[in-house]
Amino acid sequence: MTRQEIMMTMLRAAHEAAAALANASTEQKNRALTSLAATLRQRKSEILAENAKDVARARAAGRSAALIDRLTLNEARIEGAAKDLEHVAALPDPVGEVFDLTIRPNGLRVGRMRIPLGVIGIVFEARPNVVIDAAALCLKSGNAVVLRGGSEASYSNNVLGDAVADACAQAGLPAAAAQVVRDTDRELVLTLLQARGLVDLVIPRGGEELIRFVDEQARVPVILHYKGVCHVYVDRDADLAKATPIIINAKVQRPGVCNAMETMLIDAPTAERYLPEIARELQERGVELRGCPVSRRIVPSMKEATEDDWYAEYLDLICAVRVVNGVDEAMAHIAKYGSSHTEAIITENYTTASRFIQQVNSSCVAVNASTRFNDGGELGLGAEIGISTTKLHAYGPMGLRELTTSKFVVLGSGQVRQ
Amino acid sequence: MTRQEIMMTMLRAAHEAAAALANASTEQKNRALTSLAATLRQRKSEILAENAKDVARARAAGRSAALIDRLTLNEARIEGAAKDLEHVAALPDPVGEVFDLTIRPNGLRVGRMRIPLGVIGIVFEARPNVVIDAAALCLKSGNAVVLRGGSEASYSNNVLGDAVADACAQAGLPAAAAQVVRDTDRELVLTLLQARGLVDLVIPRGGEELIRFVDEQARVPVILHYKGVCHVYVDRDADLAKATPIIINAKVQRPGVCNAMETMLIDAPTAERYLPEIARELQERGVELRGCPVSRRIVPSMKEATEDDWYAEYLDLICAVRVVNGVDEAMAHIAKYGSSHTEAIITENYTTASRFIQQVNSSCVAVNASTRFNDGGELGLGAEIGISTTKLHAYGPMGLRELTTSKFVVLGSGQVRQ
Repeated sequence: MTRQEIMMTMLRAAHEAAAALANASTEQKNRALTSLAATLRQRKSEILAENAKDVARARAAGRSAALIDRLTLNEARIEGAAKDLEHVAALPDPVGEVFDLTIRPNGLRVGRMRIPLGVIGIVFEARPNVVIDAAALCLKSGNAVVLRGGSEASYSNNVLGDAVADACAQAGLPAAAAQVVRDTDRELVLTLLQARGLVDLVIPRGGEELIRFVDEQARVPVILHYKGVCHVYVDRDADLAKATPIIINAKVQRPGVCNAMETMLIDAPTAERYLPEIARELQERGVELRGCPVSRRIVPSMKEATEDDWYAEYLDLICAVRVVNGVDEAMAHIAKYGSSHTEAIITENYTTASRFIQQVNSSCVAVNASTRFNDGGELGLGAEIGISTTKLHAYGPMGLRELTTSKFVVLGSGQVRQ
Repeated sequence: MTRQEIMMTMLRAAHEAAAALANASTEQKNRALTSLAATLRQRKSEILAENAKDVARARAAGRSAALIDRLTLNEARIEGAAKDLEHVAALPDPVGEVFDLTIRPNGLRVGRMRIPLGVIGIVFEARPNVVIDAAALCLKSGNAVVLRGGSEASYSNNVLGDAVADACAQAGLPAAAAQVVRDTDRELVLTLLQARGLVDLVIPRGGEELIRFVDEQARVPVILHYKGVCHVYVDRDADLAKATPIIINAKVQRPGVCNAMETMLIDAPTAERYLPEIARELQERGVELRGCPVSRRIVPSMKEATEDDWYAEYLDLICAVRVVNGVDEAMAHIAKYGSSHTEAIITENYTTASRFIQQVNSSCVAVNASTRFNDGGELGLGAEIGISTTKLHAYGPMGLRELTTSKFVVLGSGQVRQ
């Protein structure tokens, strides 16, 4: 068989496994997850040894410290993954849930029942933990999963793939329920992305280049987000005692993630009195500020922001700052430069807050709260497989429910249509 | 400007109009719909005159009677369209609806708010009523719509497009909220289907060839259904007094639609005593039966079914008949030959009904009810823009709600992430 044929064989096996998984019991799926947690703990040293090969190869190749950090597993990370598996096992099973049940005038009982999507492809880069995270959420939601990671993490991905396969077998789930693609040839990603009728959804996880490649080449549905250019807007009616901790949290707590603030917008009447204070708070925490001309008049220590800064996802201790005239100008800035990810307003004004909530159509819109809350766990989804800025199907964090669809169920007693 | 440039200008205008429509009030959107209803009634003779040109052209070209029927408008159909507009105006506005509201342990109030998708493209054939139906549902759900109909209906589509534009203007909605593409060059369909970033969803409505073209060429999300190969399975534990009217209704009431039964499956123990009776009932109503060898032994007047018959969407008074051994064989047949559209089981057995409901993953699964109920109106959606057999985003009939997505809304009082 050619490599493509091997890949197609895997996808057909996943498609068949999906039919069995759709009818697997909650107990069976949970057993697979708790077995996997136990397996990770038992085979810890083997997993760390394989991971060390990936890390050594990345160091030898002179890869960046950030990549090596994402690549590296250690005892704490393996234990964290095991605990996450037990957490997902404890979440309610979305499959079979019936909602929107109504009784029609003719007596028909009509409801919607959640069912799995089928086969989910995950295309990711140098984060071996994705094998475990994604397998857990896909299996729990009754979907078969095909995991195609980057070659940098191949030793780690393969040993983790073995652990997942063993856990599925122990729970009586099909071997093809969760498969790691061991051949990291890039052509095979295309095979996955274009397998219409066999793959129901692809979720890419990685840098912008990978996301763009998946988005441009896919012929199957894709849910993704490119980047998070998140804004905090400090309104003229803000309670500044709330603004300061929120802005610091949004920018500083974890600057390298997609829901960190990248641009701060300040209403003109507030800027004169508040910008010096918040600028100092941020600068004291190592944040480099890049401001518009008005901001720089008020705080001359800021660098000058260029047009590119308004579009930038720094993922770093850098923050663009712009003074705007009121909420409408703030919303216009967000509409032009934003990435539909997360925006927050700080205000005590009911009408201003309502307008911001209603008119800003990013995946998450917050009043008087940090942008960092746009996260499946924080918003109550239990866990997340990623955040979508694709409007169709799921917008915002995707939990177990977002990995399902629903069919109509009609319970009759002999009704016919008039 | 080239034709492509004109089309792109229309799409950019739609994209801008979508931002305004997302914030249009319910009252404004309803006013557009009721104005349109009034306009249709006022301009009835003008519309009928334009439609007559399309009909005359189709007759001169020797088009089929079915096409001419779909193409033809008359007073009753225009009045029906006006009434449908008033009905959609009376439905609740999905935009702004907040659901799944929870309070997190840190006091954050988290909910999901429905928002429009943006720009919806409708690609359709010789059914001018689609201009009105689709515009009504898209506008009510806050979406801009670009309508590209077949050249056979161009006179009708254009005059109806004028009426829609006037109604939008009367309600203060942007002129580009609902646009009819007047240039019916096929290349421009490609421009529409590939306008990533400007078109959020395309829904094709027409024959299988059109659907396939859209599905293969689109680079924007598409929701569609190819065909409805719907099954009724008569179980060994069926109440035959329920079975007969359901089967007759599913096959005969309106054979030309996608939710009509195409294949009847009968459990072997029932077939011996029931097949002669139901075959006679169907044959008396003009239905041609095509059976498997067992069926033909029991009812020799049936034609022989070939393998192609199990896949066939007849849309006519023809029915394939197969005797199966129990619900598992029925479900295996549906999994192999079905189109994920609509399936019904006739049974009094609780466990058998439960298994069918849970294991058959078509967009609508019914117990003791006609397949003809898979319809937005009948299932309580108020209206429908079509039926989806695409699992992602919407599966089954699509009403106003299915033309929206939802964003997360977070109401805080100063919370930051720990």
